[in-house]
Amino acid sequence: MNQERPISGRLRKAPEGFLSRNGIQKVTSEAKNGRRDFIRSTFAAAGAVLPAAMAWSNPPPTEDGDPHILNLPEHSKALGRGVAADGSYGQPSGFEANVRRRHSPGLTQTMQASVSFAPLQSLFGIVTPAGLHFERHHQGWWDIDPSKHRFMVNGMVKSPKVFTVDEIMRLPAVSRFHFIECGANTAVEWGNVAVPTVQYTHGMISCSEFTGVRLMTLLEMAGVDLQKGKFVLAEGADGSSMTRTIPMNLITSGEVFVAYGQNGEMLRPEQGYPLRLIVPGVQGVSWVKYLRRIEVGDMPYATKDEAVQYIDLQPDGLARQYTSIQECKSVVTTPSGGQVLLDKGFYNITGLAWSGRGKVKKVDVSVDGGRNWRTARLESPVMSKALTRFNLDWVWDGKPAIIQSRAVDETGFVQPTYKQLRAVRGTRSIYHNNAIQSWLVQESGEVKNVQVA
Amino acid sequence: MNQERPISGRLRKAPEGFLSRNGIQKVTSEAKNGRRDFIRSTFAAAGAVLPAAMAWSNPPPTEDGDPHILNLPEHSKALGRGVAADGSYGQPSGFEANVRRRHSPGLTQTMQASVSFAPLQSLFGIVTPAGLHFERHHQGWWDIDPSKHRFMVNGMVKSPKVFTVDEIMRLPAVSRFHFIECGANTAVEWGNVAVPTVQYTHGMISCSEFTGVRLMTLLEMAGVDLQKGKFVLAEGADGSSMTRTIPMNLITSGEVFVAYGQNGEMLRPEQGYPLRLIVPGVQGVSWVKYLRRIEVGDMPYATKDEAVQYIDLQPDGLARQYTSIQECKSVVTTPSGGQVLLDKGFYNITGLAWSGRGKVKKVDVSVDGGRNWRTARLESPVMSKALTRFNLDWVWDGKPAIIQSRAVDETGFVQPTYKQLRAVRGTRSIYHNNAIQSWLVQESGEVKNVQVA
Repeated sequence: MNQERPISGRLRKAPEGFLSRNGIQKVTSEAKNGRRDFIRSTFAAAGAVLPAAMAWSNPPPTEDGDPHILNLPEHSKALGRGVAADGSYGQPSGFEANVRRRHSPGLTQTMQASVSFAPLQSLFGIVTPAGLHFERHHQGWWDIDPSKHRFMVNGMVKSPKVFTVDEIMRLPAVSRFHFIECGANTAVEWGNVAVPTVQYTHGMISCSEFTGVRLMTLLEMAGVDLQKGKFVLAEGADGSSMTRTIPMNLITSGEVFVAYGQNGEMLRPEQGYPLRLIVPGVQGVSWVKYLRRIEVGDMPYATKDEAVQYIDLQPDGLARQYTSIQECKSVVTTPSGGQVLLDKGFYNITGLAWSGRGKVKKVDVSVDGGRNWRTARLESPVMSKALTRFNLDWVWDGKPAIIQSRAVDETGFVQPTYKQLRAVRGTRSIYHNNAIQSWLVQESGEVKNVQVA
Repeated sequence: MNQERPISGRLRKAPEGFLSRNGIQKVTSEAKNGRRDFIRSTFAAAGAVLPAAMAWSNPPPTEDGDPHILNLPEHSKALGRGVAADGSYGQPSGFEANVRRRHSPGLTQTMQASVSFAPLQSLFGIVTPAGLHFERHHQGWWDIDPSKHRFMVNGMVKSPKVFTVDEIMRLPAVSRFHFIECGANTAVEWGNVAVPTVQYTHGMISCSEFTGVRLMTLLEMAGVDLQKGKFVLAEGADGSSMTRTIPMNLITSGEVFVAYGQNGEMLRPEQGYPLRLIVPGVQGVSWVKYLRRIEVGDMPYATKDEAVQYIDLQPDGLARQYTSIQECKSVVTTPSGGQVLLDKGFYNITGLAWSGRGKVKKVDVSVDGGRNWRTARLESPVMSKALTRFNLDWVWDGKPAIIQSRAVDETGFVQPTYKQLRAVRGTRSIYHNNAIQSWLVQESGEVKNVQVA
């Protein structure tokens, strides 16, 4: 399904001979002379800014033997580019062009009802930058004028209310870090189709700091009837009429909010600008984008995207509905499929863990296909229903190794093996695959997606 | 000093009459009919994707009386734009063009040795997106080829070492959220020059999740001599030869690290790609960009940027050197200078607090120029040497109000008033102004930067 060449990530080899004694002495000498001269010259000029040539007035001999030409890169001698005075938003380094979202040709029939996957193999920590956040659109994305957008609360409320975006932004704000995972993340692995990279196996997850107003605050302003109102319908303004039912107990807990901010700035248009519903722990389809309405009701709404889509086909032929919590899951992101280990020796095994039920308690890592496990270090902060980054030291001996991670959340739920998951759920599901992922490191150093029975 | 028109932020007025009963009924009716028809049609077509026109087959009458034209915005009827299949990195909404970094014409003589300020008045939470992160360059920025960049550890070590970027990235990784603040942030306020907006008063601060390798790990690999080595020199590869001394005790604590990652992706070129030193709690100039060398020594190096620059001129005419910790500080970001409150009524007062000594313990907010204080809500997580977001409810009665925030950190340090700060430090400093900021809300609703004695 994917014809793109897998990327080797950041596991390149050092240039030959760079760590030689001569090389070190040369760098040392250049740096020392440079620094000393720079300080002396600066003082002589009473703090004025000096041309680079003066500052490096006594250059050491260079490789070609001419002592008057200092063998430094251009960026160490000349003026660079100025500050973003024009307000330019900037871009990642040109050398990182390979770190990008990717879609999977053939997976969907149109680019408007489609997916782009986040390059997990190249991401660090837990924050996903907006430009690399996975996308799932049902009818394409829009850049909606926020001054014309309205958000309504109606249904089982005393007085229906319509809010402008500015009105929402005057209300008490909350900021929280949460992951968002598409219910269909890791979908094709159900059928034992081993796609090559972690970008395609697990790339429909991202994590951000969201800012907005608790939905409960808005419901209270409308005089919600909590005796009758046990569910809400969330409705988006895009052409797909995305609608999802959310049980009221998630809302009264205070966790659900209407967001306008994501990672410090306004939501990106691809992520639902100007308003999106944040439903921590629940699959992404319920995080309705371009949110225009919340209706309070007394029963689930059985909308198209919960009655006939986003359901789990069971081994007995019946389907589970309303299975929206993303259970505890983890994945090693380096080394992962498509990367190449070029030497034996030390590697930092790193990955992500999460649970829709709360905090990650522990992540164990195996390098022998699940026979032996070591506990990984969790980076702080460990937050409820957010990604958690884990790291573990590993010395590769050059022999084949099968790398796995297994997360446990604060409820005690242990991430299942494929065998355990399939015993209950069969193989015909699309959604909610949270099985342990296996990466085979071959003797060649190439890393491959495999399924361990 | 700033001729740009201050922005009004997000405190715009709702359109007249929008909250009328007719308006609500119209939206309700459209949404209800729309949803029901959509579901019915979808079931009839057995889950196939339908053209938008069919899904909305029974539109309610529109304002102009033609029942066949559904009065919905284009984005609710038609296909939007597709996923980022080309790997496009995306941009903020076109409606957010005013949210951008700004420089201050006249503040610096060149754009290469200059500053751009982050638009704090428009930011949410604690994460600063890369495109809005403040910049401070000493000789402009460069996009350095990481495959050619080298990082050396030398000086009082057993065996000097040179690392490639890839070698650094194979070592044990840490990820941490930290603020970075230029020592000169809020500088012009020393002289009672009230610049108009929080972007210019406090915009040389940002906060990110950084990922990299502890400097102590790298020093240990080189066999550091901790008996003699009490300081290190950090040196950047850009033409400014940025060099700063860092005391060894900050490094042995494990807090200092060599970063390659920032908010999930590789450092941006403006932020030191491919390697930057992270020195939590310490002013930004010590976070050396384009890091190429760490030398271990037995005394401070007295480099140009610590001997004659980045020093604090005291009232007695002497200057303090090596004052690098950013003390406890806070600022209200909304309402703030240049914004306009268009109505009386409820507002969410929000702002940022931080301390270079550890965690923020408490933030108090006054709306009467410091006579009465209320304790703000701190958003979680509250992390050491990271920004902390605070929020407080406020009902504006339409009368003049002076809004202030006062942070206290876990050491018990209380952010000082200007009077307290000047009693010790005078008025001729450039750096390390952490006084309480005052915003005057005038009866017109316009917010203005003022200094309270």
